[in-house]
Amino acid sequence: MPLSSAPSRAGLQAQAGALHEHFQRVRQHSMALAAPLSAEDQCVQSMPDASPTKWHLAHTTWFFETVLLQPHLPGYRVFDARWHFLFNSYYEALGPRHPRPQRGLLTRPGIEEVHAYRAHVDAAVQQLLAQLDDEARWRVVEPIVTLGLNHEQQHQELLLTDILHAFWCNPLLPAYEAPAGPSLRLAAAPPAESPWVDLHGGVVEVGHSGAGFAFDNETPRHAALLAPCRIARRLVTCGEYAQFIEDGGYRTASLWLSDGWAAVQAQGWQAPAYWLAPDDPRLTRDRPAADGWQVFGLQGVRPMDPTAPVMQLSFYEAAAYAEWAGARLPTEFEWEAASAQMQQATGHVWQWTRSSYDPYPGFRPLPGVAAEYNGKFMVGQLVLRGGSLATPEGHSRPSYRNFFPPAARWQFSGLRLAKEIQ
Amino acid sequence: MPLSSAPSRAGLQAQAGALHEHFQRVRQHSMALAAPLSAEDQCVQSMPDASPTKWHLAHTTWFFETVLLQPHLPGYRVFDARWHFLFNSYYEALGPRHPRPQRGLLTRPGIEEVHAYRAHVDAAVQQLLAQLDDEARWRVVEPIVTLGLNHEQQHQELLLTDILHAFWCNPLLPAYEAPAGPSLRLAAAPPAESPWVDLHGGVVEVGHSGAGFAFDNETPRHAALLAPCRIARRLVTCGEYAQFIEDGGYRTASLWLSDGWAAVQAQGWQAPAYWLAPDDPRLTRDRPAADGWQVFGLQGVRPMDPTAPVMQLSFYEAAAYAEWAGARLPTEFEWEAASAQMQQATGHVWQWTRSSYDPYPGFRPLPGVAAEYNGKFMVGQLVLRGGSLATPEGHSRPSYRNFFPPAARWQFSGLRLAKEIQ
Amino acid sequence: MPLSSAPSRAGLQAQAGALHEHFQRVRQHSMALAAPLSAEDQCVQSMPDASPTKWHLAHTTWFFETVLLQPHLPGYRVFDARWHFLFNSYYEALGPRHPRPQRGLLTRPGIEEVHAYRAHVDAAVQQLLAQLDDEARWRVVEPIVTLGLNHEQQHQELLLTDILHAFWCNPLLPAYEAPAGPSLRLAAAPPAESPWVDLHGGVVEVGHSGAGFAFDNETPRHAALLAPCRIARRLVTCGEYAQFIEDGGYRTASLWLSDGWAAVQAQGWQAPAYWLAPDDPRLTRDRPAADGWQVFGLQGVRPMDPTAPVMQLSFYEAAAYAEWAGARLPTEFEWEAASAQMQQATGHVWQWTRSSYDPYPGFRPLPGVAAEYNGKFMVGQLVLRGGSLATPEGHSRPSYRNFFPPAARWQFSGLRLAKEIQ
Amino acid sequence: MPLSSAPSRAGLQAQAGALHEHFQRVRQHSMALAAPLSAEDQCVQSMPDASPTKWHLAHTTWFFETVLLQPHLPGYRVFDARWHFLFNSYYEALGPRHPRPQRGLLTRPGIEEVHAYRAHVDAAVQQLLAQLDDEARWRVVEPIVTLGLNHEQQHQELLLTDILHAFWCNPLLPAYEAPAGPSLRLAAAPPAESPWVDLHGGVVEVGHSGAGFAFDNETPRHAALLAPCRIARRLVTCGEYAQFIEDGGYRTASLWLSDGWAAVQAQGWQAPAYWLAPDDPRLTRDRPAADGWQVFGLQGVRPMDPTAPVMQLSFYEAAAYAEWAGARLPTEFEWEAASAQMQQATGHVWQWTRSSYDPYPGFRPLPGVAAEYNGKFMVGQLVLRGGSLATPEGHSRPSYRNFFPPAARWQFSGLRLAKEIQ
Repeated sequence: MPLSSAPSRAGLQAQAGALHEHFQRVRQHSMALAAPLSAEDQCVQSMPDASPTKWHLAHTTWFFETVLLQPHLPGYRVFDARWHFLFNSYYEALGPRHPRPQRGLLTRPGIEEVHAYRAHVDAAVQQLLAQLDDEARWRVVEPIVTLGLNHEQQHQELLLTDILHAFWCNPLLPAYEAPAGPSLRLAAAPPAESPWVDLHGGVVEVGHSGAGFAFDNETPRHAALLAPCRIARRLVTCGEYAQFIEDGGYRTASLWLSDGWAAVQAQGWQAPAYWLAPDDPRLTRDRPAADGWQVFGLQGVRPMDPTAPVMQLSFYEAAAYAEWAGARLPTEFEWEAASAQMQQATGHVWQWTRSSYDPYPGFRPLPGVAAEYNGKFMVGQLVLRGGSLATPEGHSRPSYRNFFPPAARWQFSGLRLAKEIQ
Repeated sequence: MPLSSAPSRAGLQAQAGALHEHFQRVRQHSMALAAPLSAEDQCVQSMPDASPTKWHLAHTTWFFETVLLQPHLPGYRVFDARWHFLFNSYYEALGPRHPRPQRGLLTRPGIEEVHAYRAHVDAAVQQLLAQLDDEARWRVVEPIVTLGLNHEQQHQELLLTDILHAFWCNPLLPAYEAPAGPSLRLAAAPPAESPWVDLHGGVVEVGHSGAGFAFDNETPRHAALLAPCRIARRLVTCGEYAQFIEDGGYRTASLWLSDGWAAVQAQGWQAPAYWLAPDDPRLTRDRPAADGWQVFGLQGVRPMDPTAPVMQLSFYEAAAYAEWAGARLPTEFEWEAASAQMQQATGHVWQWTRSSYDPYPGFRPLPGVAAEYNGKFMVGQLVLRGGSLATPEGHSRPSYRNFFPPAARWQFSGLRLAKEIQ
Repeated sequence: MPLSSAPSRAGLQAQAGALHEHFQRVRQHSMALAAPLSAEDQCVQSMPDASPTKWHLAHTTWFFETVLLQPHLPGYRVFDARWHFLFNSYYEALGPRHPRPQRGLLTRPGIEEVHAYRAHVDAAVQQLLAQLDDEARWRVVEPIVTLGLNHEQQHQELLLTDILHAFWCNPLLPAYEAPAGPSLRLAAAPPAESPWVDLHGGVVEVGHSGAGFAFDNETPRHAALLAPCRIARRLVTCGEYAQFIEDGGYRTASLWLSDGWAAVQAQGWQAPAYWLAPDDPRLTRDRPAADGWQVFGLQGVRPMDPTAPVMQLSFYEAAAYAEWAGARLPTEFEWEAASAQMQQATGHVWQWTRSSYDPYPGFRPLPGVAAEYNGKFMVGQLVLRGGSLATPEGHSRPSYRNFFPPAARWQFSGLRLAKEIQ
Repeated sequence: MPLSSAPSRAGLQAQAGALHEHFQRVRQHSMALAAPLSAEDQCVQSMPDASPTKWHLAHTTWFFETVLLQPHLPGYRVFDARWHFLFNSYYEALGPRHPRPQRGLLTRPGIEEVHAYRAHVDAAVQQLLAQLDDEARWRVVEPIVTLGLNHEQQHQELLLTDILHAFWCNPLLPAYEAPAGPSLRLAAAPPAESPWVDLHGGVVEVGHSGAGFAFDNETPRHAALLAPCRIARRLVTCGEYAQFIEDGGYRTASLWLSDGWAAVQAQGWQAPAYWLAPDDPRLTRDRPAADGWQVFGLQGVRPMDPTAPVMQLSFYEAAAYAEWAGARLPTEFEWEAASAQMQQATGHVWQWTRSSYDPYPGFRPLPGVAAEYNGKFMVGQLVLRGGSLATPEGHSRPSYRNFFPPAARWQFSGLRLAKEIQ
């Protein structure tokens, strides 16, 4: 929401009002996502990579308190000084913090206290925005609020992936049962078109173009040189992936990267993360064996839908599938260049690319505390593009770079294929 | 509660009524202990050795359902067949079970469902006892109910040690704030007497004598041969233990057993488990440094009381302290032989002995499922005698054998000294 | 070799000469045991619990240098001051030392240097003993030399158990091929007698009686009270143990201690440590499948001999076998009391007892550095009695207490049964 | 050594003779590198990433036996069929293999047996090459021999990095003492020039151009688009790196990638891998404290030379140093484009780039067994360019892509800086 020209005071207030409305919508969405969960659900941490719902609610609030309110709202009273230690995620510049693997031990503060924290901070943000009558302050404050909201939207997706993992660890396999409102089901598939998008190669521009918000890791926009190739117009489906399994994909070393094969052996992978074989004891403890693969998701256990995009895949599995299919994964720049012509680009699953998460030429991190937001993770991870069923409306864009380590399976992550033009 | 002679039907009903009253008292005590805790508090598991409060409440109920109601109450309807997998602790004979380290992931069933489970089982037990009109059935049922209640009392103590550990892991160091009713504070110290109890040695009888309930591991009662020795009449205090620390006890290898010294090095032990040095960041984050040792307990953080019995000690620390003091730990038989003349024998802390937890001569486990109760743990652990502030009234007795691995520190465990008579 | 009365100078020299002869025999036996091994064999460490042959040769030499020569041979020149750090095993009082799991990384000093070290120390000991002409010094020196020789004999057995484990880790399964000289095969079984030794119970004296050398852990000799029981006259054989396997012993939880069952599951135990199923790939890689169990030992792979004592058992397996056989393990005092009437008491396998390795009443460790020899290990281990095919002639005695953790399988450890007299 | 046109039989024999001469030189160089090492040195494995010298000698021989002789020399007799299991490194297509972390347990086969293996295979290769009289066979055989020799040269460098790591683990810090012949010391630094090479950006060709041998990962040659930047003409020196340390580089989180900072904390890094602080106990155990940093290398411990290129750095440290220096690491294509104008491009240290080890556009692995050579490692690693003091003469080239995980420190790895042109 940058200002195009020097605004009047009334114009500023209108802008601030609009920003506050957006702020409220995003903040309420977090609460709506947590609403179906009990206090116990919101406290649990099922693995070090995941965080409790309650922690997400508090951490996103802490972010506003620390980066926006403390420096920019004179007289702001910190809600509880001891919580700074609890809800800092990974900002070294902000001092020591509670160890990540122990977030699930924080039964206190309780969920009501966290709600009070959110209300306290929301009120202070409202006050700050209501008082904004100066363009210079707007130019400082608006980017922080916008960053905070995009940050909260990222945690909204994580809130869902993390509780889904926690429920997966419960032998009762409870359903999250998405709230009324924003759907958390796969977007309807558009009408079929030709299966491949052809890219003719040459120099293309990639990265964020300047209009609207983007994270620092999408910049600077720059030229990239592509070879001709084709990108699949649609995502790989569960039905296609089931054929890979059927064909012995998980038993054929030659399809796998070395680290991927080691993961298959060490973890005993035989299917995507939340697939249940018909004879799985979690299914048969209280009912007869099913007919085929069952898939656990936000709506609980359902029969595998062969037309739905496959998800809960690691990069290793995505790459092995592509090898098996006589194809490969697209690079992140191929993906970006073809994105306008794709189907299912977003709203279904994040799509693993064959690109390591490296800095763009000339990349510089954001100034201040936000410098730790993206840049320091630029090693050992892979780029995913697109957006998933759990990505908040309007949060993603074609230049968006999501990233995870290659073994990560608890995200809504799938793939589309690419191949050389012969 | 064995029957002395063949009772009348009215006598049986009176016995059964008394047993049911006892049953209700014990069951309600569990609920009272859980009452100060939030749903989140009751769900957390801070380490594999500890269990969530909610799990304790459900597991003790499962024990009655599985061992008493299913075999002995015709027509009993199991509350939820899937819960058998969740709340079996370690009974191999009863099939596979939820992995112990993942008990904290069970956000479902929720606390209200567990309360409903308890009510369901309590009603069934009431029904079973109300229908008892046959001496033969009484002789079968009564021992199972009594075992179940003693079992539940053990979990009442664990409920407290486990939540205390969970709170210790929370940087906010919340207080449990014991409920009104049974005090969870150290019993008042009796008037001082001469510091040692002298044992003249010779053959003594040890183990359970036959009257009243006892666990299988206290039997058979048998003769043991003791050398002359003296046992401290009182427990070692925090003040005495602080001198050991001050004197470099945690830095002096020669005082320690080899495994103990390794634990000191690997874990960085410098004091009992819940002692906080005055400059501990958990203390100084929101207030100035204290004057001396602070001790965390059920009432939260308090200044160390030099006259209180020291607790939260491992066997290794107890043995090292004894070495430093020119003494040793008593054997379990010395402890038992001297117990009548001791002060603070129970109601304060469990007391580590210098006895490995081995079977008594001629030991046979209980028949049936209960065979797994005690006997299979008879290796690698040490015997503790006495009883703690958290041991339910009337649960312990002089022949009682508690046992834990030598590195365990999260129990209310301390020591009393012994030495040879020169 | 204590002196009975004040000896003449000539008597002293004769005593010292005899001691030196004994010293030479023991020292040469170590070299003979190492002789079949290459320099590489002597350097390897196959697990943290085992040590390289070369390290055994050097450490036993270091013991004489540090405990005997440095304090008691005026003018003694240390061979290489830096080796003190390398070859101290676990003596905290002697300062920091090379980490145990990294002993196998010591390719330097090489085997010739270690031989030179041994020669240097042997010459110094010879010199010290040749100069002994004073009874007071004899009373100081003789116990140290004797302790050092008993210490070296313990390492002679470990040298064999450790190299056998290393060879077991080699897919080629090489044979040690015992040197000419002392046999490392099982002693011939004596003629059959009645299968049980009956003990009538009552007070018996146990522990070392005072004549000849003993370790501190065998003292003080004291009275113990035994219940009547019977002890098997012979050891459990491989054939008997094979029936336990055949009968599903390794799949029957109810036979096992809880920690033992956990070890079976975690380690995948299905037979004693060095038993090979006929279809083991190490066997079939270069020859057809065998007919039955094959057993790896110092002579390489051989068909299982059903009459030979079973060995390479953990305590857990020994206890589970006894349970399966409707018996139990003897306590160490039962073993000691019955030892005179046993067959195969020594020379075959160490025999696990049902006794934790606790101190005897009134136990005090040896003075000085040797205080760390035995006492500090008195927790978490089990007592083994007897002696094995690898125990040097004359090293063991009925009061000898060997000890290992309950999961240890790389020793020559087996069992004999005991049971109550009904 | 491809043939330009159809050769005569004599021409073929000359080519084969030249190839055999090259074969002998490379094979003898391996033996020369092993010559200063004892049998024990050649057997040790100091960490799972490293391999024993003896294993390197055998594995490179196994490669010729398996990929060249068995398929292409009729009548070839395998030296020992059981060794196939021992000396296969990671070729899944060739069946199961000895676990990598247990290579150091292979005391058998002994070093003489491995020498015999090498002689056996060398003779067979000689025979195969002597019989080559057919162009078609030459076109099959020559690439395999050449691949095998390049493979052996890679292991020659690893042999040195691995034994250096093993010696580093020995408290005596022995010196390797390079053999006469090829120097293993840093190449002399060329005269100083201007400190930066300027790259004007635009499209450049990268990858192997087609003449001579290259690994598959260097292909296909392709166009890449570079932004303008400058690359340091010289390597970063020990003196410069010492300033980074002095300035608190290892204590400043903001300089580090997140995984790098975690490694610093977890591993306690305070300097490059083989640097010793003056008060290191390994130095002061037998001599007085030194004046400044000491550096351990092939020649043993030496005072740090401030003009020598720094090495034994992880990628994390290289990137943190660059950040501290207000620069960055070059990408692999920037490095390649500037290489002709660099000093110290090779012969000193491998240079970490800011490029993840991803496949080139259109990359296809080698056919057959060699498909597993490079491609399956293309995730989670970083590219290093150049060549080190230990890289065999003629082995590297500007398009050469070495790769290691970002935490690897036991290679001869350093860095040169790059920066944007403002």
